[in-house]
Amino acid sequence: MFIDLNCDMGESYGAGRTGNDDELMPLVTSANIACGYHGGDPGTMHHAVRLAQAYGVAIGAHPAYPDLQGFGRRPMQLSAQEVYDIVLYQLGALEAYTRAGGGKLNHVKPHGALYNQASANEELASAIATAVYYFDRTLFLFGPPGSELEKSANRLGIPFCAEAFADRSYQPDGSLTPRSMPNALIRDTVQCLQQVWQILEKGTVTATDGSVIPMKAGTICIHGDGLHATEFARAIRQSLTEKGVRLQAPRSVHA
Amino acid sequence: MFIDLNCDMGESYGAGRTGNDDELMPLVTSANIACGYHGGDPGTMHHAVRLAQAYGVAIGAHPAYPDLQGFGRRPMQLSAQEVYDIVLYQLGALEAYTRAGGGKLNHVKPHGALYNQASANEELASAIATAVYYFDRTLFLFGPPGSELEKSANRLGIPFCAEAFADRSYQPDGSLTPRSMPNALIRDTVQCLQQVWQILEKGTVTATDGSVIPMKAGTICIHGDGLHATEFARAIRQSLTEKGVRLQAPRSVHA
Amino acid sequence: MFIDLNCDMGESYGAGRTGNDDELMPLVTSANIACGYHGGDPGTMHHAVRLAQAYGVAIGAHPAYPDLQGFGRRPMQLSAQEVYDIVLYQLGALEAYTRAGGGKLNHVKPHGALYNQASANEELASAIATAVYYFDRTLFLFGPPGSELEKSANRLGIPFCAEAFADRSYQPDGSLTPRSMPNALIRDTVQCLQQVWQILEKGTVTATDGSVIPMKAGTICIHGDGLHATEFARAIRQSLTEKGVRLQAPRSVHA
Amino acid sequence: MFIDLNCDMGESYGAGRTGNDDELMPLVTSANIACGYHGGDPGTMHHAVRLAQAYGVAIGAHPAYPDLQGFGRRPMQLSAQEVYDIVLYQLGALEAYTRAGGGKLNHVKPHGALYNQASANEELASAIATAVYYFDRTLFLFGPPGSELEKSANRLGIPFCAEAFADRSYQPDGSLTPRSMPNALIRDTVQCLQQVWQILEKGTVTATDGSVIPMKAGTICIHGDGLHATEFARAIRQSLTEKGVRLQAPRSVHA
Repeated sequence: MFIDLNCDMGESYGAGRTGNDDELMPLVTSANIACGYHGGDPGTMHHAVRLAQAYGVAIGAHPAYPDLQGFGRRPMQLSAQEVYDIVLYQLGALEAYTRAGGGKLNHVKPHGALYNQASANEELASAIATAVYYFDRTLFLFGPPGSELEKSANRLGIPFCAEAFADRSYQPDGSLTPRSMPNALIRDTVQCLQQVWQILEKGTVTATDGSVIPMKAGTICIHGDGLHATEFARAIRQSLTEKGVRLQAPRSVHA
Repeated sequence: MFIDLNCDMGESYGAGRTGNDDELMPLVTSANIACGYHGGDPGTMHHAVRLAQAYGVAIGAHPAYPDLQGFGRRPMQLSAQEVYDIVLYQLGALEAYTRAGGGKLNHVKPHGALYNQASANEELASAIATAVYYFDRTLFLFGPPGSELEKSANRLGIPFCAEAFADRSYQPDGSLTPRSMPNALIRDTVQCLQQVWQILEKGTVTATDGSVIPMKAGTICIHGDGLHATEFARAIRQSLTEKGVRLQAPRSVHA
Repeated sequence: MFIDLNCDMGESYGAGRTGNDDELMPLVTSANIACGYHGGDPGTMHHAVRLAQAYGVAIGAHPAYPDLQGFGRRPMQLSAQEVYDIVLYQLGALEAYTRAGGGKLNHVKPHGALYNQASANEELASAIATAVYYFDRTLFLFGPPGSELEKSANRLGIPFCAEAFADRSYQPDGSLTPRSMPNALIRDTVQCLQQVWQILEKGTVTATDGSVIPMKAGTICIHGDGLHATEFARAIRQSLTEKGVRLQAPRSVHA
Repeated sequence: MFIDLNCDMGESYGAGRTGNDDELMPLVTSANIACGYHGGDPGTMHHAVRLAQAYGVAIGAHPAYPDLQGFGRRPMQLSAQEVYDIVLYQLGALEAYTRAGGGKLNHVKPHGALYNQASANEELASAIATAVYYFDRTLFLFGPPGSELEKSANRLGIPFCAEAFADRSYQPDGSLTPRSMPNALIRDTVQCLQQVWQILEKGTVTATDGSVIPMKAGTICIHGDGLHATEFARAIRQSLTEKGVRLQAPRSVHA
């Protein structure tokens, strides 16, 4: 039994600090590294890539809408062509650092509003998956299980890894509780561990209304900018490894 | 006897945190608020203005080079006309928030590389002072004593307030020790207080080579992004007020 | 009988040219000048303000979503607070140039997607109108007749000027035909003049399906980036003045 | 006898037009495509790459300082590490489009102030050449003959192609006459052709003071944003091919 633990990294910009890459990198198996559009200045991106390579953490691109001011969390309405173009740009920009460091990319995970909108919108999902396909068809696309991202990846024959969240609560329809709601974030370590184990053992989560919904996932996300990110990551890592679950990034059969 | 205590504020951008406006605002008498070019997204700027107005802190614009990636600390070579234009833009942008909150600006302090370059360059200093003049000639310009900024302000007849730094060491020529050098920042509260009192009582600072140089200042700067910013601000405030020094922002006789 | 002729100006950025401010400025009575968010670098903004002041053209701010890449034409989903903050920022930035030139702003016209979304969305419209109110309640807000922008202006008691387009076709519901459709732009001078006269004399336009819809307007917009902008502006100006229609910007009774 | 003809492309951003890629692409053999930092939004970059691939034009990355407002023409002072990081970022971003289109990059030519500063500064030149080396050591670096860029390329063993300008005048020291000077640009087709032939046949140019200086070049640059760009390109192409000079991009022996 094994699972991937992923975390958003490299999101600081200029003098502003976001997340704690140095502390979290040794605790995860996949790093989704910002590509400059919602966060991630070149120095920050490069540092995150070097850290990941030093710890043997698999590197993914974390492309977003061009919205530094809103951290890529504000929905935008771009054409499929525009989405395809901005995703390619960001994949290439990040890959340059992994290549200079002697490694390669392993996955792509859209960020924020782009992730949420593409999960439910075939056209957007297809634009993203097509960009991944033409860039490097061995890369895993990360997204919610059953989402349009999964369907697009399947149609194009690129590997997909279903993602569940350790520190976010779910709505009955399987979507994440919006950040604007008070119970969007899980702030308690016990509750966080409980959700992780339920995902692993039963392939379900319990939504905010108490209903149990399917959630089969190959990768678990911890948010690096959460207050308890490091604590959660340590607790999950310890709990999983103690019970014999191996933590590892997904590996492409094509690669 | 009185002195102004100023601090850079409103410099966060997107999800990245810079400084600690909420903690520092009650401790200072002047806030230099970022204008979006080196930091300061609109929400952050607006929040900083509201905080300053709530605590009765005088508000200044903190215009910079257009360099979010480098936090405005990287020297650039712009024409005098370009500098004039970017300063006007930023003064206006910040003033909109002070006006919407029922207040007004009190001063202008250039940021980072623009501050350093204009201090030693007549053309740049003049471009900045001219922008202030045509925008609102009652605003104080903050800059190092004896700098080109002071000379330009004097030539145009706009009020000038000489600034010294509580937490930065000085070179024998009166310039700040560059941040790239190990002893650029003062990290010890006692040393910081010593420098403040020397400025107030003797109008001098002791440079890194031990020489004593003139430093008559009307305002003392504490850096909000320093690790010890809050501690320093509290210590300075307490030490000064205990000994009867009144903390207050400069007031324009024109206003 | 009189009418205002407005045009978007100051939208160039860096080395890229958008529109033709130098040719169009003498032909209009109101200039909506970009504020840096969808176009308009500081030098371009300043030049446009100087041109307008030289020709006695009334100056308006043309605030937009922060989307230089998409020229502010891509819908975004911002909170009311975020919209309020970005509008204030842009109003202030532009006003700095008008003030430095010895003049003042006369109106505010939202740009692109912000204009379209706010026309139909009470919350957005209210955020914009409130920003105008707290910035300067004598400024005219430009928007489509009967839109949420008009309703918000009326509620707050700020002056409103209804706008119709000389070079855009209309849908039966009174909205502009989207730019993605082939017949969005009117490319023929005769057709353009016909639409202008119909607006002036009958207060109506003929929509793409042939239906006649009400369109009472105090200002007519010509797009500066249209291929035929100068030709249209000259033709409209000549046709109107020949028949005794006076061209003039709206004037606030409060000012 | 053969020579490369290169031109800056893909520099438009948002709604602003810079240069005329569609007209110029069929006339050149190498295209230096902007990477988003001084110009070049994703759609523009992608379009330029597609055009180049359609016409069999060799594609180069045209990395710049992060200065959209100043079109990358304003000198900045970045550390060697910062330059390395921004160059890698831009190489990767552009390469993504060439790869998605089934092709590859052939060269790298720094833009504007970065080109000029790196030509004379060993540290900057080395940072750029090192980024190229770790990204793809088969890429040609374009720069002035005898410049620090050439020396850095030689030290690292990456191919170098010396560049001369068809439409810019030269100073006696071999540097380009600054754009701020009236005679910086060559505006006459005859004079332009004369300079090209002198470079080809004699390996020299005649500087503004009449002195003849060495200028052995493997590639000739025509500026796409010049008023006469298309005319010059046509004239050069015709004149060269008529006299049996073959136009072709440099080819790496490693590739």
